[in-house]
Amino acid sequence: MARPILTLTTDFGLSDHYVAAMKGVVLAICPQAQIVDISHEVGAFAISEGAYTIAQAYGTFPKKTVHVVVVDPGVGSARRPILAEAGGQYFIAPDNGVLGMVLARERHKVRLISREQYFHRPVSQTFHGRDIFSPVGAHIAGGVPPSRIGPLITDYLRPAFQAAQRTGKHTWVGQILKIDRFGNVITSFHVDEFPNLEQRAFSLMAGGYELSVMVRHYAEAVPGDLVVIVGSGGYLEISMNQGAAAERVACEAGAAVELKIW
Amino acid sequence: MARPILTLTTDFGLSDHYVAAMKGVVLAICPQAQIVDISHEVGAFAISEGAYTIAQAYGTFPKKTVHVVVVDPGVGSARRPILAEAGGQYFIAPDNGVLGMVLARERHKVRLISREQYFHRPVSQTFHGRDIFSPVGAHIAGGVPPSRIGPLITDYLRPAFQAAQRTGKHTWVGQILKIDRFGNVITSFHVDEFPNLEQRAFSLMAGGYELSVMVRHYAEAVPGDLVVIVGSGGYLEISMNQGAAAERVACEAGAAVELKIW
Amino acid sequence: MARPILTLTTDFGLSDHYVAAMKGVVLAICPQAQIVDISHEVGAFAISEGAYTIAQAYGTFPKKTVHVVVVDPGVGSARRPILAEAGGQYFIAPDNGVLGMVLARERHKVRLISREQYFHRPVSQTFHGRDIFSPVGAHIAGGVPPSRIGPLITDYLRPAFQAAQRTGKHTWVGQILKIDRFGNVITSFHVDEFPNLEQRAFSLMAGGYELSVMVRHYAEAVPGDLVVIVGSGGYLEISMNQGAAAERVACEAGAAVELKIW
Repeated sequence: MARPILTLTTDFGLSDHYVAAMKGVVLAICPQAQIVDISHEVGAFAISEGAYTIAQAYGTFPKKTVHVVVVDPGVGSARRPILAEAGGQYFIAPDNGVLGMVLARERHKVRLISREQYFHRPVSQTFHGRDIFSPVGAHIAGGVPPSRIGPLITDYLRPAFQAAQRTGKHTWVGQILKIDRFGNVITSFHVDEFPNLEQRAFSLMAGGYELSVMVRHYAEAVPGDLVVIVGSGGYLEISMNQGAAAERVACEAGAAVELKIW
Repeated sequence: MARPILTLTTDFGLSDHYVAAMKGVVLAICPQAQIVDISHEVGAFAISEGAYTIAQAYGTFPKKTVHVVVVDPGVGSARRPILAEAGGQYFIAPDNGVLGMVLARERHKVRLISREQYFHRPVSQTFHGRDIFSPVGAHIAGGVPPSRIGPLITDYLRPAFQAAQRTGKHTWVGQILKIDRFGNVITSFHVDEFPNLEQRAFSLMAGGYELSVMVRHYAEAVPGDLVVIVGSGGYLEISMNQGAAAERVACEAGAAVELKIW
Repeated sequence: MARPILTLTTDFGLSDHYVAAMKGVVLAICPQAQIVDISHEVGAFAISEGAYTIAQAYGTFPKKTVHVVVVDPGVGSARRPILAEAGGQYFIAPDNGVLGMVLARERHKVRLISREQYFHRPVSQTFHGRDIFSPVGAHIAGGVPPSRIGPLITDYLRPAFQAAQRTGKHTWVGQILKIDRFGNVITSFHVDEFPNLEQRAFSLMAGGYELSVMVRHYAEAVPGDLVVIVGSGGYLEISMNQGAAAERVACEAGAAVELKIW
């Protein structure tokens, strides 16, 4: 039988012992789990970046994968832990919007995590990643049915991180979702909303620059020129062949971008 | 049968091939091993930080887990490799104090690693992580009894990293164990030594600041205020809600901190 | 039966979701795969650093390990994907020289990856790591014979990263392969080409410094002194006991170094 897969997405970094403590809890409960790190370098407390990261990663994983997502500035407070079933996979996270981009895409149902018998005891007030999210994830990976974890709820948070806002007949406003390692500036404009853009007159404005050249892959661009490209997740990106676009287009995740199409 | 778990804690970083070379050695000897990274971002040569990291992480792992800990500024010199059995788990490391915080907490016995038949040959003078610690760990994970690795010894190093020193009727001196990713300043004062502090008048002094407010979780603090909190490992931490305490309290791992209780 | 091992070496970093997307693809195709990270911190687009990293790491892995190596500035362009069988292991990479140091050492044969049935569809123009290299690697790990992946070719790139050039009766010119995490300056002069150097009069010149002292291990050097050492990969390194040699010898990967032997 295939081993259950459990992934981890956090803002804990890789220097501290926090991620390892979570893995120990998982393996003590579900020794056959295959643990995969999505990222632990989500910006500290950066809920929208965490939302983007898990939304970009889960799609390649097989059905029944369990994703534990811990970007949790409200740990210990009244914010609730939730378990979502979406797209045939499981997602365990604080109810602070970090699952927002996944839930916006997939049919889903959401449960409140409330059965303390599945927690790691005693539960600390500062590390629910170790004491609530990981052990519940491990029990799901080990075969505990979601219905045992807690009741269905409908009042969970549903932020709209990525929807483009139409601001005129020809204009939309979006935002920068992330600057990636290569300096690509990833916008929230998705190719499904703006198809065939390469055949139309358009301009994308960000950080004082206005771009209207689209290429299919990096090497097609003149080295050093800013271009627009449809990235691997389907979002429009501002990129540079053999260079980091973000070093020229000075802007950060969350900044506004504008798209005009004639 | 459950797969044996082998963890790695080093100061090798993640950029170089060193950690991967160790994993190759482990899997060549014990293909069924489940390898878990604790941290490879321990400061270069920072023995006390390595001691803190493994001491905070091992507690959640199941019995018989094998922990390979390599922070080893004396590699190639006369410092000895050791194998400790402590708390039902195994620890393999240079005898330089990096296991000090684990051994201070757990009943243990320690062996000198001396049987070269369990080494990766030839043994280099600069990379015992690959040539001694990893292969011995893999053999232990694969079922070789510790008694085959070498004789029991009692003269291993026992540094006292974390004990609070009483300096007056009401005062203790400790040290900063680590600044974590979130800027929490983790002190060596443990809640077991100073119970019920939240019900008493106290002050914690570090980096020119004097703190006397204790909260149970980050969100209970006024954003931007410095507070004291009992962290997930039981140590007193200086923290800030939605901010990095260490950016205000300018101090580093190893710096002295003082606690007064009336 | 032992689980197949699949390693990943990329310049994707650990912050983005790219590595995780590759792992999802691998596990969806070959659930029993044991995935090992070699490094994801190869410099962006740094083909020669990638070549060095995989060449230093593969040697400790068992036969039949599958290594997926993605440092790929030409993604989407005409550069070809290749599968190499070398030293009893498999290597999957773009044909841009990133396998150069492995192929220079091992008897090998190389195939063009051409059978699209083994790709992850649709194939994006910017992320062949997810859509070509990982799925082909997973199929090889799962037992698909290499001959099914594509035809043998002989016109793949064979760069000579590391060969020392003789420039005089007593002099050779090489280059710096990498600065490692500890600040060791790793040169391309290999101990197999220059044996018994410690018994001869020599000088190694780099970054304005001339070194003629060789030690066997770091602790043998006077703290703070620059020395030459044979590193764990067999290359001459410029090192410092309890310090970072690279902070004094200001030089970068790719810079020229000279060796004189009398």
